[in-house]
Amino acid sequence: MSGGTAGKAREADVEAVLAANQALYEALERGDVEAVENVWLGAAEADDKGGVVCVHPGWPVLRGRAQVTRSYMLIMMNTEYIQFFLTDVEAEVHGDVALVTCTENILSGGESEEEGELGPLVGGKVVSTNLFRRTPAGWKLWSHHGSPVLTSGDEDDED
Amino acid sequence: MSGGTAGKAREADVEAVLAANQALYEALERGDVEAVENVWLGAAEADDKGGVVCVHPGWPVLRGRAQVTRSYMLIMMNTEYIQFFLTDVEAEVHGDVALVTCTENILSGGESEEEGELGPLVGGKVVSTNLFRRTPAGWKLWSHHGSPVLTSGDEDDED
Repeated sequence: MSGGTAGKAREADVEAVLAANQALYEALERGDVEAVENVWLGAAEADDKGGVVCVHPGWPVLRGRAQVTRSYMLIMMNTEYIQFFLTDVEAEVHGDVALVTCTENILSGGESEEEGELGPLVGGKVVSTNLFRRTPAGWKLWSHHGSPVLTSGDEDDED
Repeated sequence: MSGGTAGKAREADVEAVLAANQALYEALERGDVEAVENVWLGAAEADDKGGVVCVHPGWPVLRGRAQVTRSYMLIMMNTEYIQFFLTDVEAEVHGDVALVTCTENILSGGESEEEGELGPLVGGKVVSTNLFRRTPAGWKLWSHHGSPVLTSGDEDDED
């Protein structure tokens, strides 16, 4: 649509948002809770009326940084190995809010019965909508909603 | 936090967003595709880089008005009766974007084998994050993500 300064600013926004999105999954792969927390809106930026919101696949809504962090700790405790291959990643920026949608192709494994061994790896497909807000500290995650893909859908549909 | 003009404007925003959210579910209950379409961002407001995004429980991501409308028609075709009891509804407005989260307690039924009869009713619980954008025509749905609740979660957790 636009090729001038506005177009360039928009491209830079999209790039920054995609980097923030990528940082979430890399932090999860490393099992780095602090890095995950840093991707999310901080207590200072998230207002006290609700703040951050998170829905893991099959879970109810979690609200607030404390609940969200606790949920990641729980997931990491039960996950020995996790890798995300993101596909179908799309970002749309609207003012100070950005919406990223992506498919998380997940390969993960829990603990094995045998000490020092990895349990069986399982694959899974999750679709996520990740909502970011622009802050002085960069784009921060306001809401994450991931859900399991159970149907193939109308993948041959074209708009 | 604020009790003045800004606080009042914020309250009015939240009220308008919640009404737009309610309108989605009422349109679905009536099986009114046109009303559902009217809740979503129109072709004019949604930019051509992506536009609206929708994830039904267990479905992959649907993008664009055409795909989204088609999905509702498909769901309505297979649903004789549907009723939503919304609980845990929370709205947060940030500039021209509003995030609504809610639990959809759904009672629905398909067609019966017996002509003129209703099939067995089934209950279900879905959590949704609904993202609205402020437009000259009011708050319009930019993104809907619904997912089945499969675990009870840490409901005794308090933040």
